[in-house]
Order: sequence, then C-alpha cells, then structure tokens
Amino acid sequence: MKDLKKILPGRVSTEAEELFCYGFDASSHAGLPCAVVRPVNTGEVSKVIDFAYMHDTSVVPRGAGTGMTSGAVPLEGSIVLSLEGMNNILEIDEKNLVVVVEPGVINSRLQEALEQKGLFYPPDPTSMDFCTLGGNVAENAGGPRALKYGVTRDYVLGLEVVLPNGKVLTTGVKTHKGVVGYDLTRLIVGSEGTLAVVTKIFLKVLPLPEETVTLLCTFPQLNDAAEAVSKITYARIIPRTLEFMDRETIQAVEEYKSTGLPKDAEALLLIEEDGPACSVSENAEKIASICASLGAKVSIADDIFAKRRLWEARRAVSPALYRISPSKINEDIVVPRSKIPEMLRQLKDISKKYNVKIVNFGHAGDGNIHVNIMTDRNKEDEYRRAEDAVKDVFEATLKLGGTISGEHGIGLAKARYVGMELSPENIELMKGIKKVFDPKGIMNPGKMFPID
Amino acid sequence: MKDLKKILPGRVSTEAEELFCYGFDASSHAGLPCAVVRPVNTGEVSKVIDFAYMHDTSVVPRGAGTGMTSGAVPLEGSIVLSLEGMNNILEIDEKNLVVVVEPGVINSRLQEALEQKGLFYPPDPTSMDFCTLGGNVAENAGGPRALKYGVTRDYVLGLEVVLPNGKVLTTGVKTHKGVVGYDLTRLIVGSEGTLAVVTKIFLKVLPLPEETVTLLCTFPQLNDAAEAVSKITYARIIPRTLEFMDRETIQAVEEYKSTGLPKDAEALLLIEEDGPACSVSENAEKIASICASLGAKVSIADDIFAKRRLWEARRAVSPALYRISPSKINEDIVVPRSKIPEMLRQLKDISKKYNVKIVNFGHAGDGNIHVNIMTDRNKEDEYRRAEDAVKDVFEATLKLGGTISGEHGIGLAKARYVGMELSPENIELMKGIKKVFDPKGIMNPGKMFPID
Repeated sequence: MKDLKKILPGRVSTEAEELFCYGFDASSHAGLPCAVVRPVNTGEVSKVIDFAYMHDTSVVPRGAGTGMTSGAVPLEGSIVLSLEGMNNILEIDEKNLVVVVEPGVINSRLQEALEQKGLFYPPDPTSMDFCTLGGNVAENAGGPRALKYGVTRDYVLGLEVVLPNGKVLTTGVKTHKGVVGYDLTRLIVGSEGTLAVVTKIFLKVLPLPEETVTLLCTFPQLNDAAEAVSKITYARIIPRTLEFMDRETIQAVEEYKSTGLPKDAEALLLIEEDGPACSVSENAEKIASICASLGAKVSIADDIFAKRRLWEARRAVSPALYRISPSKINEDIVVPRSKIPEMLRQLKDISKKYNVKIVNFGHAGDGNIHVNIMTDRNKEDEYRRAEDAVKDVFEATLKLGGTISGEHGIGLAKARYVGMELSPENIELMKGIKKVFDPKGIMNPGKMFPID
Repeated sequence: MKDLKKILPGRVSTEAEELFCYGFDASSHAGLPCAVVRPVNTGEVSKVIDFAYMHDTSVVPRGAGTGMTSGAVPLEGSIVLSLEGMNNILEIDEKNLVVVVEPGVINSRLQEALEQKGLFYPPDPTSMDFCTLGGNVAENAGGPRALKYGVTRDYVLGLEVVLPNGKVLTTGVKTHKGVVGYDLTRLIVGSEGTLAVVTKIFLKVLPLPEETVTLLCTFPQLNDAAEAVSKITYARIIPRTLEFMDRETIQAVEEYKSTGLPKDAEALLLIEEDGPACSVSENAEKIASICASLGAKVSIADDIFAKRRLWEARRAVSPALYRISPSKINEDIVVPRSKIPEMLRQLKDISKKYNVKIVNFGHAGDGNIHVNIMTDRNKEDEYRRAEDAVKDVFEATLKLGGTISGEHGIGLAKARYVGMELSPENIELMKGIKKVFDPKGIMNPGKMFPID
C-alpha cells in the first residue's frame, strides 16, 4: 500500500480504526480491508483501479454503507474505495430536466436542491438522508414512491464509469431517449459494483407534483389491509406510496419513538397520493372509502407536521425492530400484489413451524414486503431455525410468482440463495458478462454470486 | 433445408416468392434468405435455433417487418424466423397490472384489448397498427407518448427467450420490482435480435388516463415552434405527446391525404395532454397560452373524430414524404430539447451545403427529430450528397449532446455510424457480451455493429 500512498498522497489510509469502520455496512456482515482510499475525482479513481489491476487486488466501491445486503462489505484484504468525497451536484439542467451528479451525493441533498426549483427525483430509499446516489445506482434502489414512479434504473440516462482496467467509459445518453448499442447503462445499474466504478450519473428528473395527500388507515384485521392494497389498484388508482406495517412493527415503532401510531391496530397502510391538486383530493376520497369499507379507521394528515411525523414513524421501523430482538434477518421479497394476503398467511405458518418471530412491513403497493425474522445471533439453535425459515420464505415467494429481492440487492448476504431464483443458464450468462468487464475478477468479489 | 422441413413439417417455406417478400422491411435494404420458418410456439423456435446452431446458419428473427433500420433484413442465406404466428395475448392480469403476450401480437391489438378493461400500454410507435410487440422489444421502440410515459424498455418486466444454443431462458420478474442478478431483460430489449429470440413478454401496464385533450398549434415561424417545446416543459408541464412537423411535412401530408392541416403554416405542434379530467383542461389552457404567446394559432380537437383526423395526418407523414422524392434517408436523431432550435438551424445549413432537401418532423418533446433527407436512389451524385449530409447531421447531433438514434435502432442501416457515437471501449464490451450469448455469431449478424 506504500506505492498507492505515493500515487495518491493524502487519499489512502491504513489506520486500524479506519479499516475497522470501513469493514461494515448496515447488514450484519463485516470484513477487514487492507486500505481505505478516498478519491475526489475520476482521474484518481482510475489510478486506484489501475493499481489494483496491476497488483491483482480486489476493490470494493462504497457509498455511505447503508446497504442491507453487504454489497459494500470487503472481503479480507480488499481496497475499500470510498466515493464519499465525490459529492458534487454538477448540473441541474432545468430546460432539459436532466441532472448530473457525482456518486457521493446524498439522495436527500439532491431531492432538496431539486425541490427548490420545482423539480422532483422520485427514488426515495428509506435511508435517503444518508445513502448516496452512487450506492442507489449500484443496488438499483427503490423506496416507497417506486409504486407510482419506478426505481433508480428508471431515472438513469447514462453513466461515467471506471472499468476494471482503469479506463474511463461513458455509457448511455444525456437525452431522454437513445437506442444505440446494447444497454450497458442498465446493465451496470444494480450490478453492485461488480462490473465497474460509477463516477458520474446522468439522471432524468420530473416536475414536482402540485400536491400530496397523506392518509393513515388502520385496520383491525391484517388480511383486510392486504385486501385493501389489491382493491385500490384494481380501482385503477396508483397512489405514489402504499406502505404497510403489521401489529408487531407498529408496536416496536411506538416503543422506540412515540409517534402516535395506534398500538392496538392489527395493521396499517400509510398511503400517499400526489398529482394535480384537483385530482389528488378526489383520489384520496376514493382510497379512504375503499379502506373504510374494509373496516379501517382513516385519518388524513392535515399539515406538513402531521405528514412528517408519519414518515418519521415509517423511517424508524428498521432501527425500532431491534427492540424486539438483538438481531434480525431482513428480507425484501416481492410477490404479485394480489398474492400478499396468501404470502402473509404463509409467513404466519413459517413463523410457527420454526418457532421464530416474523415481523412484516414494506411497500405493499408493489408487493414488496420486508420480512424480518427476529432472532439472536448469539443463540446458535435459534439462529439456525431463523436461517431455515429464510429458505422457506424464499420458496413460498417464488411459488407465488415473486422474487427474493425487490430493492435491497444480493450482496454477500443473499449470494447463496440466488440459485433458487435464477436458472443455471441465467447465472452462466451473468458470469460470462462479468468476465467481459472484469477478466481478473477484482471488482467487488463474492457479491451477487458465490465465489466459484 | 430439407432436414429442417422434416423437423418442422408445414412451417418451413423455400418458395421463391416468399423468400423475396421476407427479404424486405420498411427500410430500403433487402437480402435473400434461404428459408422462411413460421414457428407457433417456443418449442418450435427452439428447434429452429438448434438446427441453425448445428449447421452454422444465421437466423434473423422477424415481427411485421416495419422497422426503419433493416433489423429484420436477412443477410444472404440466413433463415428468416417469422414470429407472426405466435400472436396470442396469454394473460391480462387486472389485479397486478401485468400482461403476458407472445411476440407476434400487434401493438394496437394489445392497446384495444387493454382499453376495454380500462388499462393502458403507453408505447405507441407510429406503425402501431402493424408492428409487433416482439419487434418493439427488439428495437426498444418509442412513439409519441414516450415523452410522458417512456419507451418499451420501461414496460418490460421479464422475457422468455430462446438462446442461440436452442435453450429456453426466462429473465427478469413478473412483479413490478426485482433486483436479482444482472439486468438481462433490459440487455435483450433493444438488442435487435442479436442476442436471443424473444418468445414471451411480461409487460407492466397502467390504468387508462381519465381524459385526453388534443391541441393543434400552427406557427408562422419554425423557430417559435421549437421555442414553444422548451417553454412548455420549462413551465413544468410534460404533455403526453408533443409532436412537430415542418412546412414541407405539412404540405406533403396534405397533398397525400387531405386532412385539413393548414398548408401555409411554417410549423405545427400536435400536443396531447392526458390525466384526471380536472387537470387536463387546466394544463391544456396553459399550453395554449404559451403557444399563442409565440404567435401560434391554437385549436382544440373537440371530438373523437377531430382527434382521429389529426393522428391520421401524423401517421400519414412517412408514406406522404415519398411524394416529395422517390427515396429518403430517414434518421431519428435526439438532441436535448433546448437544443432543437439550434439543430434545426444547422439542418438548414446542411441542406444548403449539400444541395439536398431535408424535411423534419418527430417527437419534439423529447428532442427526437426524424430528419428525412429526400433524394433519388437512382441518381448517383444526388444520393452520394445525401449520404454525406447524413454524416454532417450526426456530427452536429453529437456535438449538441445528442444521440444518432432515439427509437429506430441501428440495424444494418446505421451500423457503420455507430463508431461516431460509441467509444471503442463501448463497442468492445458490447461485442464481448454478444460473444457470451452467441459464440458462433448466428443471431442476426451484421446488425448493430459492422461485421469484423
């Protein structure tokens, strides 16, 4: 690493404390890197990758480390390439509704900069106040608003990346349309840093919706909340968010951060509708009446403070769940939304079968349920049961026509399960593509697929 | 071909007339295949590909042959694999807003089937009454509504394909979200049949918008029409279509099919706004006032017949242009929409420089201009000048931050220009990916990249 320090003076750290801190992310995996490098421009990224390529050292690109599937966790001896210093919003082109950002820009910082100009970048991972846009691209992050507006992939027009041989590549276009050549842009989106390092992102943005209404619907029966999800979309309404929490989630949140959620409810839906002022209130009424007809108590957040409180409650879910147990295995399965009631029933059965507590919340509108198996990593037997339960959850998900990850990605955490969903032919093609980009296998090894 | 006839009795034709007819598409290129095969299911497609793989024969998948860049034109001696017989809408899942179709389904047939259920599939290539969804996937087709709703890629959730070794592969998901593995689905979308044969398509659909308003705005100055495009989106309005025609286009259409367009106008915008009834009329007024302030005469199509007449005029553009000259070189460049006035100025200069007539229309809202260089293929000198003009058009486009194809694809027609836009590294990666899928190079050779 001395050579690397010479090449990039002041950017390379091998301090024990730093190596330790950069070995983690928001998942429960960790590994010790050999160095942490913080480049501030594309040229510097290129130098690091060049060095790694020459020395056959693996590189783990890292944003804010908020990922749930250990995409940013280094294998022993890797270089962690932290892009936190490349955090400039380079351009907001109001005429063409295109922005250009560096990968280290925090999601909510872009949101705020755009809102001031009446513009809107929809993808809103729950960690939006901390996570970086580069990380969002690497994981193809979603968020509550994905229901109406889609995920990160749907906004990325083009990328500048550094390839595993150190060369700089620009993919895609800076316009809203373009079909020249294979779609390398969307191949790199969601590739978890295994193909290239993203150094610049060209994003499409939208006009800010005129108005937003937020509804809280609490249900005395879990199943009725799930039915409401189906009925709302069947009524041809696609709200911008349709979030779901079960009883255990509500109680955990209330104990963690008293936000006024009704602790006696079996389930709640947090629904947000946006658009032109005149239609928003009309649709909100329709949604309220569907939920009420299924026995829900409906309240409308009538000011910005009430709205914020509800979203604070929603964003507190993940930390709050640690009040239930010291560890959790956090999945983010997706099933066709009409299959949510059936999936919840099966989750109850799995919970009984393995004698583990399962807590569910998530983006019910698009069928994306965060299934949390509560456990204690230190109790060997309980943890084994929890892991067995995961397999059953995935099997049930796939049988219902779903997928084992909606937005968290695969990383290290789920690499061994990928074969449950993808056929050997799929995996073979993906590994072939990986080799085309990264013949030496230095880019974030062990993520997405188990190492052969 | 005798062996293939034995393997698939009744599906293989080697009749001279058929070979001739299947050697064309809507571009001006043609080639003679050795056989035309019309499979009716995935198993049969697999058998054809198997045969081709064993015999090192190239295969050209074909929908309705409406492509503008000769993606479906066979090289001499290829098998044309016509998917017109696989034309079933397999499922319309109203609860989950997902449909499953075979590749031979005509775009407008799906549109109609969905509209009856209050659903909506936005991509609407101008050839929608003839083109197939499989062809749309192969070319990542757009259309007027792409401005607000995006292109084919944005609606494809997953695919069933037959790989060049005859194996069947399912990619992607049947849900609205999913991030497991690399995005093979969107890699295949837009790959022009060079990676695999699409045999089943899983599409996301939307609720049908409540109302649509259609405006015709005619301008005495070309430049003002271009300015209006920028001003409308700058006012934070994204209409569903924002179509542009110049004077020559209007006149050609009127001579071809008298539809009542004002022949004395320098340019027109055909604008459609959709959404909730209350907001549509509000936005239509704003749009009208922006156009009027730039000197436009604005009229609103007040019934379904008036709307249809306007869209018939728009759809007649391509055939109508042949009244101007017997051949045309039809490009579909995209520039950032704020650069449209500058691009139109440069097109005028190029027209003068090479003494060729250039006629422009297209999807101005997303900066996608169909540049038609009018010429006569039989006049050698004139045609050469037209071809030289194309190069200048592409150079100007790229300098303004645009792309040389927005929605028509590359095919044979533009393969030699790809290097103007894509760097050698981009092309190298794409060729590497092609090799992973198709090591023998049997899938639609010569398309997208020139043959080495």
